[in-house]
Amino acid sequence: MRTVSKKMPIGIFDSGVGGLTVMKEVMRELPGEDIIYAGDTARVPYGIRSAETVTRYSLEMVDFLVQKGIKLLIVACNTASAFALTAIKERFDIPVIGVIEPGAKKAIETTRAKKIGIIGTEGTVKSSSYVHAINALYGNKPVIIKEHGTIRFDRYFEVSLDDLTIFTKACPLFVPLAEEGWAGNDVAVLTASHYLEGLKREPIDTLVLGCTHYPLLKGVISKIMGDDVTLIDSACETVNEVKKALIQYNLENNSSKPLRMFYVTDAPERFTKVGERFLEEKILTISKIEIGG
Amino acid sequence: MRTVSKKMPIGIFDSGVGGLTVMKEVMRELPGEDIIYAGDTARVPYGIRSAETVTRYSLEMVDFLVQKGIKLLIVACNTASAFALTAIKERFDIPVIGVIEPGAKKAIETTRAKKIGIIGTEGTVKSSSYVHAINALYGNKPVIIKEHGTIRFDRYFEVSLDDLTIFTKACPLFVPLAEEGWAGNDVAVLTASHYLEGLKREPIDTLVLGCTHYPLLKGVISKIMGDDVTLIDSACETVNEVKKALIQYNLENNSSKPLRMFYVTDAPERFTKVGERFLEEKILTISKIEIGG
Repeated sequence: MRTVSKKMPIGIFDSGVGGLTVMKEVMRELPGEDIIYAGDTARVPYGIRSAETVTRYSLEMVDFLVQKGIKLLIVACNTASAFALTAIKERFDIPVIGVIEPGAKKAIETTRAKKIGIIGTEGTVKSSSYVHAINALYGNKPVIIKEHGTIRFDRYFEVSLDDLTIFTKACPLFVPLAEEGWAGNDVAVLTASHYLEGLKREPIDTLVLGCTHYPLLKGVISKIMGDDVTLIDSACETVNEVKKALIQYNLENNSSKPLRMFYVTDAPERFTKVGERFLEEKILTISKIEIGG
Repeated sequence: MRTVSKKMPIGIFDSGVGGLTVMKEVMRELPGEDIIYAGDTARVPYGIRSAETVTRYSLEMVDFLVQKGIKLLIVACNTASAFALTAIKERFDIPVIGVIEPGAKKAIETTRAKKIGIIGTEGTVKSSSYVHAINALYGNKPVIIKEHGTIRFDRYFEVSLDDLTIFTKACPLFVPLAEEGWAGNDVAVLTASHYLEGLKREPIDTLVLGCTHYPLLKGVISKIMGDDVTLIDSACETVNEVKKALIQYNLENNSSKPLRMFYVTDAPERFTKVGERFLEEKILTISKIEIGG
């Protein structure tokens, strides 16, 4: 472990604004921690890029944060967590926490029916990163996959791992809806009712919000899925892991005027406008950095 | 003019799949022409990048097409047309046609009320590229800008150029809706009714679809705007300009088995899946090229 101290900030890295839902949780649960956030807005979205490219971009961004002096890193991006977490852990000698494993772990702990739903972007669903994470925690069972639905908005997958079944569904319009600030309006309700139609027919009792944008749509998703389905918010679970790591390494801070710094690789105005809706707080100190583009 | 011949293909360049609506028009209006399409899917969307970056990316993509041997280039991307058209024309010695000027010209010809609406992505509306193009054709009048609406989906701009008034409105969700294949469903109708609420109150008689994705939503937009508003499809107007240029330079082809070749910089599977919906035709010959990423 390199020399880190309590007084150093936590670093949060994401491809764009989505990681701000994780930052919001950190601010709520660990109010005395300084935070530096880095968003790779010049090269967002990561979900459509290859694993090699995502790893290269991620290492560049984390390198920047580590040079700023952080004591712990949160990779608040599903794609980067899926593709680059191992490379980041190998390169940098600080605690590194991704967003996939905490949500996967909580889902297994929560489900009684042994039927878990996972919703995410097309990239996340296609990469099966949550399925792999759940299966790794569940003992690497043999996998049987079944496809349901014919038309696009009705299409979802059923993955059987022994006695546990996972249903995965891509909801591509949820991200643009959240970024447009429409996460609670009638368009969001109608969109969610189409996307979740198939999953509602399945006897799932646990639904993982497998995208950092989705906590904004929690109200709408919960309304459609009903009270019997527990929503797993990866942001909350990730912050629980962060808490544990800070205690484990004796790195907790208790700043009375905690620092919030934001760095983006392009278009700070758009980041600020959309980001303040995600963070529910003003973004005051933001700088553009020269990485990528 | 470098050595070009009738038998050479037309090149179409776009940042992603949107330019396929232009390609569809070329195929319909000029069925005997060979076409090579290049989509920069590794670096899409261009709308959030700086002018310098867009110009650099555009020149790289066009360089590739010119090396393949094209007789004419269509820049079927609003952002590239706005930022890079001059640089492309300077560098390459073939006829080059963008998507903005043809739509701007047609709008001026069409409006009787001298009230034009323009809808596009946030980037296009923010760059005022259509307003500049219309004003250039209209004699560079002094510009007076007024903002309407307070909440996001109701916010639009009024630009007065002497006796001509332009109303511009960003519709960010139209692109993801079109790419999701939801251009005609109830979500699209509800989304369009929110976005177009303000413009409907204005006495416009002409509405420019200022984004290559929007022709897919023509039915929904037309239903909401009503029969008195003429929709200007930039794709159609651009192809009219292409026709004129082919005649002017004596470059018309009449192939009985016209070639269709597609090149993308990343994720050919996704391009094919989404693209076939845009093109209403099978995409058979597609290759990934190593530019960017």
